[in-house]
Amino acid sequence: MIVVIKRSATAEQAQEIIDKITAMGYGVNVSQGAERLIIGVLGVRSDKDMLAAQLGGFAAVDRVMPISKSYKLVSREGVTTDTVVRVGDSVEIGGGLVHVIAGPCTVEGRDMLVETAHWVKRCGATLLRGGAYKPSTSPYSFQGMGKEGLEILAQARAETGLPIVTEVLDPRDVPLVEQYADVLQIGARNMQNFTLLKELAKTRKPVMLKRGLSATVEEWLLAAEYIYSGGNHDVILCERGIRTFETATRNTLDLNAVPLVKSLTHLPVIVDPSHGTGKWDLVTPMARAGVAAGADGLMIEVHPHPEDALKDGFESLTFENFATLMEQVSSVARAVGKPVASDASIAIEA
Amino acid sequence: MIVVIKRSATAEQAQEIIDKITAMGYGVNVSQGAERLIIGVLGVRSDKDMLAAQLGGFAAVDRVMPISKSYKLVSREGVTTDTVVRVGDSVEIGGGLVHVIAGPCTVEGRDMLVETAHWVKRCGATLLRGGAYKPSTSPYSFQGMGKEGLEILAQARAETGLPIVTEVLDPRDVPLVEQYADVLQIGARNMQNFTLLKELAKTRKPVMLKRGLSATVEEWLLAAEYIYSGGNHDVILCERGIRTFETATRNTLDLNAVPLVKSLTHLPVIVDPSHGTGKWDLVTPMARAGVAAGADGLMIEVHPHPEDALKDGFESLTFENFATLMEQVSSVARAVGKPVASDASIAIEA
Amino acid sequence: MIVVIKRSATAEQAQEIIDKITAMGYGVNVSQGAERLIIGVLGVRSDKDMLAAQLGGFAAVDRVMPISKSYKLVSREGVTTDTVVRVGDSVEIGGGLVHVIAGPCTVEGRDMLVETAHWVKRCGATLLRGGAYKPSTSPYSFQGMGKEGLEILAQARAETGLPIVTEVLDPRDVPLVEQYADVLQIGARNMQNFTLLKELAKTRKPVMLKRGLSATVEEWLLAAEYIYSGGNHDVILCERGIRTFETATRNTLDLNAVPLVKSLTHLPVIVDPSHGTGKWDLVTPMARAGVAAGADGLMIEVHPHPEDALKDGFESLTFENFATLMEQVSSVARAVGKPVASDASIAIEA
Amino acid sequence: MIVVIKRSATAEQAQEIIDKITAMGYGVNVSQGAERLIIGVLGVRSDKDMLAAQLGGFAAVDRVMPISKSYKLVSREGVTTDTVVRVGDSVEIGGGLVHVIAGPCTVEGRDMLVETAHWVKRCGATLLRGGAYKPSTSPYSFQGMGKEGLEILAQARAETGLPIVTEVLDPRDVPLVEQYADVLQIGARNMQNFTLLKELAKTRKPVMLKRGLSATVEEWLLAAEYIYSGGNHDVILCERGIRTFETATRNTLDLNAVPLVKSLTHLPVIVDPSHGTGKWDLVTPMARAGVAAGADGLMIEVHPHPEDALKDGFESLTFENFATLMEQVSSVARAVGKPVASDASIAIEA
Repeated sequence: MIVVIKRSATAEQAQEIIDKITAMGYGVNVSQGAERLIIGVLGVRSDKDMLAAQLGGFAAVDRVMPISKSYKLVSREGVTTDTVVRVGDSVEIGGGLVHVIAGPCTVEGRDMLVETAHWVKRCGATLLRGGAYKPSTSPYSFQGMGKEGLEILAQARAETGLPIVTEVLDPRDVPLVEQYADVLQIGARNMQNFTLLKELAKTRKPVMLKRGLSATVEEWLLAAEYIYSGGNHDVILCERGIRTFETATRNTLDLNAVPLVKSLTHLPVIVDPSHGTGKWDLVTPMARAGVAAGADGLMIEVHPHPEDALKDGFESLTFENFATLMEQVSSVARAVGKPVASDASIAIEA
Repeated sequence: MIVVIKRSATAEQAQEIIDKITAMGYGVNVSQGAERLIIGVLGVRSDKDMLAAQLGGFAAVDRVMPISKSYKLVSREGVTTDTVVRVGDSVEIGGGLVHVIAGPCTVEGRDMLVETAHWVKRCGATLLRGGAYKPSTSPYSFQGMGKEGLEILAQARAETGLPIVTEVLDPRDVPLVEQYADVLQIGARNMQNFTLLKELAKTRKPVMLKRGLSATVEEWLLAAEYIYSGGNHDVILCERGIRTFETATRNTLDLNAVPLVKSLTHLPVIVDPSHGTGKWDLVTPMARAGVAAGADGLMIEVHPHPEDALKDGFESLTFENFATLMEQVSSVARAVGKPVASDASIAIEA
Repeated sequence: MIVVIKRSATAEQAQEIIDKITAMGYGVNVSQGAERLIIGVLGVRSDKDMLAAQLGGFAAVDRVMPISKSYKLVSREGVTTDTVVRVGDSVEIGGGLVHVIAGPCTVEGRDMLVETAHWVKRCGATLLRGGAYKPSTSPYSFQGMGKEGLEILAQARAETGLPIVTEVLDPRDVPLVEQYADVLQIGARNMQNFTLLKELAKTRKPVMLKRGLSATVEEWLLAAEYIYSGGNHDVILCERGIRTFETATRNTLDLNAVPLVKSLTHLPVIVDPSHGTGKWDLVTPMARAGVAAGADGLMIEVHPHPEDALKDGFESLTFENFATLMEQVSSVARAVGKPVASDASIAIEA
Repeated sequence: MIVVIKRSATAEQAQEIIDKITAMGYGVNVSQGAERLIIGVLGVRSDKDMLAAQLGGFAAVDRVMPISKSYKLVSREGVTTDTVVRVGDSVEIGGGLVHVIAGPCTVEGRDMLVETAHWVKRCGATLLRGGAYKPSTSPYSFQGMGKEGLEILAQARAETGLPIVTEVLDPRDVPLVEQYADVLQIGARNMQNFTLLKELAKTRKPVMLKRGLSATVEEWLLAAEYIYSGGNHDVILCERGIRTFETATRNTLDLNAVPLVKSLTHLPVIVDPSHGTGKWDLVTPMARAGVAAGADGLMIEVHPHPEDALKDGFESLTFENFATLMEQVSSVARAVGKPVASDASIAIEA
């Protein structure tokens, strides 16, 4: 941590600050530059955030600049081997293959879900998505089928063998959702719902943590650190677009974050081009781009009849369009040396 | 709702879309412009969002543009008189006076809180703030004193008579926090924590709803609609800065939102220049600006010793600086014809 | 400048970096923290930017963090007294009074401009604005009256005595516009048009520099530094709103920037709530807020008939609304101890 | 264009607005919804922007929403075949092959440029980049070698046969730069420098138009429309990252824009991952992603010794890293059916 002292500060003011730091048990490295005094704070302890806050209370402090990463356990500096998250018996996310999670935004009924599950499996998806509890911007919008939705998801799993990814919104729902889901999803709007993060840290199921709409990469990794440090090491990150000034797309898919995050953390990272664009005709090219950027998987909204969807019709792929996506993604995935999982298993079987 | 049809659409495709709309019971107004067909959807029903989603599933649809506000009850179009939120026996927020809520970011102990409460009351604050449950970006940061913090807040209220504003993070904590707090605060990161919103809709205590870091004004009012439509009409909005590209300040305080929101809703709006700037030396000028823009109140972080604060030392005012703030705000408040509450009561007593 | 070395760096890599720095003639302060090595670069020279760029080329460098401000002459650290910009014979911007610049977005003809000039003067404006050269997002929009517009502005000045503020877009137009204008305006889209900045550095007329739509405060001050270091010290900064995710207003007026910039630079700062909001009904409250935040002036669009304006009808005030604005701003300006200039002169005359 | 009337509007106010529209020669489609009146404006004329501005001046108007695209000639609705931009004798951008433009940020001298040109050609680049006139945020940074830099570029072209892409900043420099350059580049900060756009519309050389840091896709296409409608049809768009709240990367590369823009316009689109990330270790994955998203080319900063670069050392690739990039891009380009140009010519020769 570097503390920059104001040019106008007196020697007494500077000394008070140094005394504060040393009184808290940290070392100092004092450097008098041509224009101003700079104090390096030496030592690593968990109360460093608090010290930074307190230094901000001194009138003579211009700025406090952190040096070390505030996340530790999810950092590559802490763990050097890639985390591979096992889901169910057969899926390993982060293990060198691209996994595609596909399905409708929302579970709307048994038939549509099972039909979709069969189709996406046939096309090469290895996990099934579907929302039973839906966060809706408006109180008047559909809020999900709840427990009934979870049961339908379980039926689709039973029929297809695809593990289930589904969102949980409320810490009180975790025990129930955990019974059904193979991966518990934390939505973008809950990325900093810290009591929910702490609750998921206690489960034994993998967690998929979507990036918040206005979360920096550092905040995203700190949210992952909540889960990881709480005891659950099976965390999958999901880039799903951030909010910017551009309104021609629903969000701005930040693919820079994919290679960046893979250099900062050992956790796997997947990409959601459906929310990341909000337009079905952009989903396939951006799915290709996500895989080319190095993602460990994709999350894609597919609906048998987007024109009858209860949510997100604009961004849902038809069955036909999803088949095209899988073909194109498969080709790019091979080109970057990280094949789509279903292709790899075919290869192995063959 | 206006549906813009792609220029390349065939007459059959357009007719399918019209059929879809009328089949759902809506009227249509079809207008053939020079370049493209436009369909107005007539009628107001709660499933309009779903229709919009479904229309997005038609390949021939270019865009769907909403016309009506998606929030109803909190809109000025629904209720034309200003909502006045009564807190405790004496405070009325939105009733033509500026109320100042002041206190430390976090309850750190009995003495510091009671001392602060006495001081801010003496300077003219009419409510006391202090966090017992703290949302922290890092799992290693202080998470608040919890129930003990609530008890200390209650003691400070008993000694000073100031009603208490404190944050609740988890739906499971609502029954407890409700016993102590006079106003339940929803923090920026929880503005779209919909299960928490629904839980607060059931309490009988006023709710202060902070704007999310990347929430549009419309999303903020829809979050208020969750609480209002759920049965709790005592909602206070709080502008606390949004996240932008500018990093010289912690957030960008969006004062445009104050007059805008007051034109759109009948709910009172207050301003938090402490989080809105993140720098103690900007808090006073921006408090003045907030009141000049028409705010019904302010929320200000004050700490007896910012250099020992457990959080937010950079943005906390010392006692002396808070006294200055109150003097200056008082002067601006009179100039805009909405005096600070403590001045008004002095005037009445005198 | 602080150079943070990657944790994975070898001693040889670190030494290479130290050698690079010392070879360029800078001193170093090497600090071995618990987790990583940090190198402070000592000395202030104009090639520090280049050194930073080069250090970025070393694979072992994690980050380079500047400490000193990159602007020098416009910084309060360089010049400690406030700059007062004299315009014409009578106006002093930054001298402790609030100056209001008012007029139409665009010069549309002689009558409308002269009529507006008389009205705004009567209400208390002390400068007249009007565009002769207009930057238009679309090539099909009105591009301004050019030289004829300048002549009309000069006539309005002759009739009212109000100095003229008008925009220049092209370095080739500077000699002509300089003949007519009292203040040369650089628009938001040209804030980093460096050849235009250099050209204006050579004129003897004051320059009003609008903040770019996505310019940080630091970039804005560096743009001012171009003009100041080039020889023209009469620079007025103008906050006019930044681009954010919020689309309910045309821009987000960043009033935080007003007290922030006044603490960083000695140059005067004014606020443009017309562009900053894009909605005429928000202009007056935000003009009040701008003055309460500490601005040295305001820039307001006024049109005799906004419903016939060639541009910006949405944000132009009618004569009647401008009169109201001036009354309210006058009251707030007195409350913050920086009266509107026309009030002050009345007071002096009386 | 759709005009939404306020709910509070009287019939007289609505009629005034209708009269205004018809008086200007447009047709109207009036639709009385359940909650408010909506007026469709029928007809397409170049003064529609002005009408929109004027309608904003009516107090009873809530909003004006454009329907038609404001750009015409660059729209796919205007021209249905893809534009192929020919550069020099051999390069065709937008013709189904990926072209890679590579070279240093800045021309720093003859040797470094010629050396770089030979290397990038050998690796498969088909155009050479290098800045002779540099836009610099700080007046104290290197501003480029000017005419001497252009001459060096011409020498590198003579030795390698690679056409030259170089930036022009000032309308007064266009005649000179045009003599040397094969493609004239407009930088991000000049995207809305309208007088420069108009000047480039008159040249006979292709123009590469970088997207502005905070430019929407619509504004970008309108900037292209300035050049196209002014008579120069050889416009290449370049996505180079936008400014967002994320500071871990220099910009946020908006790859959504690639397939979006290709659906809206017939012009070719290339991607600049060097500026789009600002970090050399992210350039290669994002180059792969750009091609996977459908780009017609890439623009890459390469420097023989990034640790001695005068600018942008952080984002420049070494020769070795550029060779790796080309290999990987080549593989992805084949996978998406749009091979790198140098591969294609090898194939043809073979």
